[in-house]
Amino acid sequence: MHSLTVQLGARSYPILIGSGLIDSTELLTQHLPQRDVLLVSNTVVAPLYAARLQQALPNQRIVEAVLPDGERHKTLESAARLFDVLIANRMGRDALVLALGGGVVGDLAGFVAACYQRGVALAQIPTTLLAQVDSSVGGKTAVNHPGGKNLIGAFHQPEVVIADTALLNTLPDRELTAGLAEVIKYGLIRDAGFFDWIEQHIEALRARDPAALAHAIYRSCEIKAEIVARDEREQGERALLNLGHTFGHAIETATGYREWLHGEAVGAGMLIAADLSERLGQLPATAVQRVRSLLRRAGLPIEPPRLGAECVLARMGLDKKVQAGRVRLVLLTALGRACVSADYPDSVLQQTLAAHFG
Amino acid sequence: MHSLTVQLGARSYPILIGSGLIDSTELLTQHLPQRDVLLVSNTVVAPLYAARLQQALPNQRIVEAVLPDGERHKTLESAARLFDVLIANRMGRDALVLALGGGVVGDLAGFVAACYQRGVALAQIPTTLLAQVDSSVGGKTAVNHPGGKNLIGAFHQPEVVIADTALLNTLPDRELTAGLAEVIKYGLIRDAGFFDWIEQHIEALRARDPAALAHAIYRSCEIKAEIVARDEREQGERALLNLGHTFGHAIETATGYREWLHGEAVGAGMLIAADLSERLGQLPATAVQRVRSLLRRAGLPIEPPRLGAECVLARMGLDKKVQAGRVRLVLLTALGRACVSADYPDSVLQQTLAAHFG
Repeated sequence: MHSLTVQLGARSYPILIGSGLIDSTELLTQHLPQRDVLLVSNTVVAPLYAARLQQALPNQRIVEAVLPDGERHKTLESAARLFDVLIANRMGRDALVLALGGGVVGDLAGFVAACYQRGVALAQIPTTLLAQVDSSVGGKTAVNHPGGKNLIGAFHQPEVVIADTALLNTLPDRELTAGLAEVIKYGLIRDAGFFDWIEQHIEALRARDPAALAHAIYRSCEIKAEIVARDEREQGERALLNLGHTFGHAIETATGYREWLHGEAVGAGMLIAADLSERLGQLPATAVQRVRSLLRRAGLPIEPPRLGAECVLARMGLDKKVQAGRVRLVLLTALGRACVSADYPDSVLQQTLAAHFG
Repeated sequence: MHSLTVQLGARSYPILIGSGLIDSTELLTQHLPQRDVLLVSNTVVAPLYAARLQQALPNQRIVEAVLPDGERHKTLESAARLFDVLIANRMGRDALVLALGGGVVGDLAGFVAACYQRGVALAQIPTTLLAQVDSSVGGKTAVNHPGGKNLIGAFHQPEVVIADTALLNTLPDRELTAGLAEVIKYGLIRDAGFFDWIEQHIEALRARDPAALAHAIYRSCEIKAEIVARDEREQGERALLNLGHTFGHAIETATGYREWLHGEAVGAGMLIAADLSERLGQLPATAVQRVRSLLRRAGLPIEPPRLGAECVLARMGLDKKVQAGRVRLVLLTALGRACVSADYPDSVLQQTLAAHFG
């Protein structure tokens, strides 16, 4: 098992990475000492792993809440259902909300933990690659609104993140690939050497080579933990983690969270961000080519739906990255280096959007 | 104008107390610099003050959201309505949520500000005595659930609290009286001299003598600010502010938030807490008499509804003060001194509840 720590003073917490962790009663009870547990999962993951997890936690009172699968269920209504379950089961302030699932389950369960009784303990057991490398770490929780993604949420750090790599064995290929988009993101924004490594190991990653996956997860979490430790509430640097997300959220929202997985939308969005960076003269064309090629080799769709540039612009206006009416975008200045900028000609943004969205 | 500061490091903020503050464009724009404002109020307060406030903020884009009046509307559904308004009006992360109303409006608007885009700026303009001395200060925000009061919420400090004492002129007598319960609370938990002062000035307060009211508000806010500064997240001392609230919440919840005002329920709850403290042998009977007499002179109802001790006990089980299955109660050890205790015989609690609730 590998472990690293998200350094946040009194709210620091470990990320544990390894195979078979959810079967270890010793490990789990060490990190999850709470007596009362609301186990939040979904209809796909719960049948696979909930019973095993419960078996490994024999001394807790565990109440299971199983939600329908999918980003379109990450709503305030689903949160309300979980509050009802917590209250119906008389869970107190000392209860634990335990998220067993992907990013949707983690974001939703995290939001519920943040708000129940003004905050109860949260633990994340991410079951997708995307959740293991990104959404389970860093304390961002949220639900979606028909008007935009993650518009209702809270910062609420977990007590522990348990990334059991064996859980990825049941992950559909498409979900694994979607997770690779976020892995590539870390290379793009922070670590050119890691980007090189991903280029060299993309086939191994897609073939689920355990050593390659473990390294990708560890290095991704390490980069995320560093950034979150320096800027927990996204007042600066943390915004870099949103590379591709503004465009990606527009794709997800416009398609009703039905057709595109989050990671897929982020992948397509990163290519648009790279293209825009090139059009602004701050990124060489060869770098954009390498991004496009790696996304393709990862199996990601790189052609966004033909939403139309105007529709995308309108949706971007509601993204959380808007300040003083202007969309702040994450752009690349090299492979391994990103910046946040609101200083771009609107015409270049429009041309870029027209090129990708029609 | 008097002012004091809630000392919370980077999140410190002023409480401004004075007459006519909401008409001062200079003061308001100094403290509310945001361009986009969601003004949250209710059907009683908005017709009285919203237009005046808007007039004093001529350069802001103000969107008004007017909710029905009353604690039973402090729900997740009302919060959802406000999120809809924020999103329909394309309010960004740099927007301000401005609460103009009593505790219900402040708690609800505060919760919405806490969660919208994971937190936007909040300002409180409390219009009831209760909100001016208590709920607008300290960053507790929440909505109710049919299963219990304030079960869904967040800690989210405002940027400023503007307590305009002139707004109390339109407050119904019953609401003023309900606010006096919280004023009395500060004397009981922290300041015997202030309790004496309230005893001496209770008629002046009920007659809305401006100097008496201003002193009561200032001293109440001062005590609250001190306690919040030392224990923002209620890990210890701040729980003392809940004197009477566990019993009071049971009254409010059992009666569907319809018959008892929050302050009235707290008043009755404080007398029960004092009585329990006496039965536990830690408070002299003369002190309980003084509490009862002052609550009566304030015009507060001191006989709770005949809910039955068992029903109240069951409702207390869901209160946020429960830890490891045991209700932690705020008790008095003297006039001006309180403590939190889970160390009492159940039989004495039951006798006390039976004496008050039947």
